[in-house]
Amino acid sequence: MLITFEGGEGAGKTTLIEGVRRHLLERDYEPLVTREPGGTQLGVEIRKLLLHNKDVAIEKRAELLLFLADRAQHVSEMLAPEMMKGRVILCDRYTDSTFAYQRGKYDDQLLRVLCHFAAAGYSPDITFYLDIDPKLGLNRCKGDDKMHDRDIAFHQKVRENFLELATMEPERIRVIDASESKEAVLHKVIEELEDVF
Amino acid sequence: MLITFEGGEGAGKTTLIEGVRRHLLERDYEPLVTREPGGTQLGVEIRKLLLHNKDVAIEKRAELLLFLADRAQHVSEMLAPEMMKGRVILCDRYTDSTFAYQRGKYDDQLLRVLCHFAAAGYSPDITFYLDIDPKLGLNRCKGDDKMHDRDIAFHQKVRENFLELATMEPERIRVIDASESKEAVLHKVIEELEDVF
Repeated sequence: MLITFEGGEGAGKTTLIEGVRRHLLERDYEPLVTREPGGTQLGVEIRKLLLHNKDVAIEKRAELLLFLADRAQHVSEMLAPEMMKGRVILCDRYTDSTFAYQRGKYDDQLLRVLCHFAAAGYSPDITFYLDIDPKLGLNRCKGDDKMHDRDIAFHQKVRENFLELATMEPERIRVIDASESKEAVLHKVIEELEDVF
Repeated sequence: MLITFEGGEGAGKTTLIEGVRRHLLERDYEPLVTREPGGTQLGVEIRKLLLHNKDVAIEKRAELLLFLADRAQHVSEMLAPEMMKGRVILCDRYTDSTFAYQRGKYDDQLLRVLCHFAAAGYSPDITFYLDIDPKLGLNRCKGDDKMHDRDIAFHQKVRENFLELATMEPERIRVIDASESKEAVLHKVIEELEDVF
């Protein structure tokens, strides 16, 4: 089972995933926590280039292709083999992030072809989108990576894209109000997960 | 004008490109010599990952996407702006390499879509394919990168793919017998270039 967590900067994904991991451990699952970009050794190198190396210029097509290269490696080296063993995967960002962050720059259908290729067809069973006003989110997190540096209008657009994706696939993508307390968010997500397990 | 040079390992691309560059300089052009992967700063980082970092596992989809990310950056940062200035570009490997090396793993049409996306539609005006028996080529070059390590059957298949591409686009792709002397190869290529200029 592949469970993905999506959301803008400062939405609280990391804290939530840790909470879900503990909950599943108590229920005798051994969830694997991973993230994009960065879940594999190649991913770590790509993450450095994409988010932290401000000296290396990366144009928009190259950026998208690097995110997809990370996903391809992640799926093939980690997600697919672990899912074959029946393990529950908790993944911090996945295909929906690619869509939400890249949408508008390219034709939607082309984006779908590219994402499908990179993910080798593996799609999430359930996705939690942590929804928060970007102003609030960016204030919360002290990030200094390249995504954090983009202007507020960009982050607003990303949020709209996530919400539109959720409208298109309401069964898979569950929208969680991330402006609430960490405890409340975790409680809500665990409740929704009970339905699935 | 975009002139690309293709060929397997040890075909003599580097020497030939240097010869063509000198020839064009004498004719008062200022050609820009560049290569893939590696023509930009991002490309250098990608090249390290793809060809020299044997500790980082890279699965086939990720490999293709990294080559394409390099191309996207190369086109946008270097080829397009220099071509706009009217400069002649001599490029060591381009889209035909992607096709020849990746063909058979994916649907041809999907490969075309991916390549077209990365190259933002920029295609070569003329391409020289240096054709050589892979056994001879691999003996010639003392390469120790990952491509060099692959078995002879792989390199034979790559050669067949290049030759098939040349059959499909005989006007653009000129097949040059690279088993001849360096001088003969250069002479032949300059002769063909005279027709174009």
